[in-house]
Amino acid sequence: MKTVEVCFTPELLGKFNLNNKMVVIVDILRATTIITTMFKNGLDKLIPVNNLNEAKKYKEKGFLVAAERNGVKVDFADFNNSPYVFTEENIKGKTLVYSSTNGTNTINSVKNAKQVIIASFLNLSAVAKYIKKENNDVLLLCSGWQGNFCTEDALFSGALSEELLTTRQFTTNCDSAMAAMDLWSVAKKDILAYIKTIYQYQRLTRLGLKSIIDYCFQIDTTQVVVLLKDNYLVEQKSFLK
Amino acid sequence: MKTVEVCFTPELLGKFNLNNKMVVIVDILRATTIITTMFKNGLDKLIPVNNLNEAKKYKEKGFLVAAERNGVKVDFADFNNSPYVFTEENIKGKTLVYSSTNGTNTINSVKNAKQVIIASFLNLSAVAKYIKKENNDVLLLCSGWQGNFCTEDALFSGALSEELLTTRQFTTNCDSAMAAMDLWSVAKKDILAYIKTIYQYQRLTRLGLKSIIDYCFQIDTTQVVVLLKDNYLVEQKSFLK
Repeated sequence: MKTVEVCFTPELLGKFNLNNKMVVIVDILRATTIITTMFKNGLDKLIPVNNLNEAKKYKEKGFLVAAERNGVKVDFADFNNSPYVFTEENIKGKTLVYSSTNGTNTINSVKNAKQVIIASFLNLSAVAKYIKKENNDVLLLCSGWQGNFCTEDALFSGALSEELLTTRQFTTNCDSAMAAMDLWSVAKKDILAYIKTIYQYQRLTRLGLKSIIDYCFQIDTTQVVVLLKDNYLVEQKSFLK
Repeated sequence: MKTVEVCFTPELLGKFNLNNKMVVIVDILRATTIITTMFKNGLDKLIPVNNLNEAKKYKEKGFLVAAERNGVKVDFADFNNSPYVFTEENIKGKTLVYSSTNGTNTINSVKNAKQVIIASFLNLSAVAKYIKKENNDVLLLCSGWQGNFCTEDALFSGALSEELLTTRQFTTNCDSAMAAMDLWSVAKKDILAYIKTIYQYQRLTRLGLKSIIDYCFQIDTTQVVVLLKDNYLVEQKSFLK
């Protein structure tokens, strides 16, 4: 049997052995939700960068850049961090450079894992299907908030763990995975009511970004699966066909 | 109103501001449960040390020492890490030096906080009462397992947070605190069944220490409150009277 583990923040990544594992990056609010949206709308290639300096250098070379800090688009960027700006019209067939507060760093911290994929509620079932097909031990890596635990990433990890553990293909003895599933069992009864209690709901509402939250908790609106290939994120097209 | 926060492992302590806060140390399996037991049985003073070298130096000076690693008493120690060895007969009125795998390091990592107290299920209500009386912002610091999240400490933090938040004296916007309360809401329906699913249950059972687990999940068997005073742990006697 293959194992499922959950790491609640990248700061705890050193506690896990990545050998031969598939790492699933989770940043529900908002990087992995946004990335899923981008590929759903036909993006060709995404370059995740760690910081605004890197993003700016790409911009100077002529790349399209999406970058925000504290909910606001940085001055040199073409896109902010709202899922609504990445329309088919804006991004289909293009290459984009992306820097977010937490998520893009998380992606770059596990570049050496066997496989790295991107997951969100928007493509929960497609991701679960892909993980089962690949049949590796899997680590769900939450991006957290400024290095600390955050509820929304734990909830998604619980939802995905539950989906994997319904088959006999996967097992777990990881406390974080089991706790995440218990949290999800409480939250899923009324997810939109539940997320009103989390810290990010308060923060994003304060920033006038409340409409984004409901978007990020939609389940299975797309079948795209996005994975890291060399230093780029691309859609796993062969999986779809 | 005063705030309640939960830190899931000492590795995340840097994410919290300790200014003017009371820190509550949680290491259910087993340091804080053992320490509560020691003072329940009349210990006068406890010296928590970080490592076995320090413990050995104290031993050479003639101190009584409790120390274990991986469930086994270290050769030079007088006591292992079982709650059953710290009887009134063995420890009443004495000073003891103590080194455990996770918990004693946690205590020493927050020596500079405004106040540091020790908590376990054994003295849950007494600790809650003391925290309310002191009326400070409070951080519940889980010792975790080898620096990572562990369920038993999160559960206790949930139980204590719930107890504090039933009054209007305390509030929280900390995701970890809210998640801990949700976990506790699931677990408390049948705590002894629930803990059979956690990693430490498997580990301690493998080590032949299963009987210790039930002991550590008894609720409110004592009213003692233990706090850090200079470099010692002592009972908060004035509180009792």
